[in-house]
Amino acid sequence: MGAAFELDARLAADTLPVGDLPLCRVLLMRDRRYAWLVLVPRRAGMIEVADLAEDERATLWREVDRAAAALRAAAPCDKVNIGALGNIVRQLHVHVLARVEGDAAWPGPVWGHGAAVPYDDGEADRLVAVLRQLLGI
Amino acid sequence: MGAAFELDARLAADTLPVGDLPLCRVLLMRDRRYAWLVLVPRRAGMIEVADLAEDERATLWREVDRAAAALRAAAPCDKVNIGALGNIVRQLHVHVLARVEGDAAWPGPVWGHGAAVPYDDGEADRLVAVLRQLLGI
Repeated sequence: MGAAFELDARLAADTLPVGDLPLCRVLLMRDRRYAWLVLVPRRAGMIEVADLAEDERATLWREVDRAAAALRAAAPCDKVNIGALGNIVRQLHVHVLARVEGDAAWPGPVWGHGAAVPYDDGEADRLVAVLRQLLGI
Repeated sequence: MGAAFELDARLAADTLPVGDLPLCRVLLMRDRRYAWLVLVPRRAGMIEVADLAEDERATLWREVDRAAAALRAAAPCDKVNIGALGNIVRQLHVHVLARVEGDAAWPGPVWGHGAAVPYDDGEADRLVAVLRQLLGI
């Protein structure tokens, strides 16, 4: 039996849980500068996308599509950004962002750009509720 | 009949052609700081991954996997980075990078980080030849 999946402590600290898709845990970044989801396959020991079995890789990208569609519906945007980096947090995770022209990092990438700006009370909860409904989770 | 696919002029200027997979044109960035491929689905008018038909989305990600495997074989690395941003060049394209601890942008993202460093004469051609062989194209 393999080790149980456990969410990386830094990802847990930087996000709010949205819910679970069949493969991935969906998280909302605690940063109101961007509508920003992170998808984490609930499999222990994964670092690269290539570490997943082929059928799970396909599921991962379908869930990324699904998250992107929900995010665009919740937060209209000019461009979706998708990224699997993991240079700092090694646990496999995929960022899905709704970028708006003129946002804090535009047109650069968001990673490593300034400090997160916390949501106001209730604001993140409302967004999480909308995303849960759009994702059907 | 739809418009014919034409590679974005900026992508063309910043890269060397490696070859064509069934869906994507594979390009090598003219930047010796990183082993860096760009995959461009040969479909006109695509901006978001979601603009592709579902079967072509699956093909895109399989080709990204294939490119990542070839890149890792050609340029051993500490972490693969995958990104679909498109905030500046809107034509749909996916970056696949072999990142090495301590590289020019480490641990940050490469996009927008400093100026590209050109390959020496012959160096890029040799890498393209190795990648073509590894990709079987």
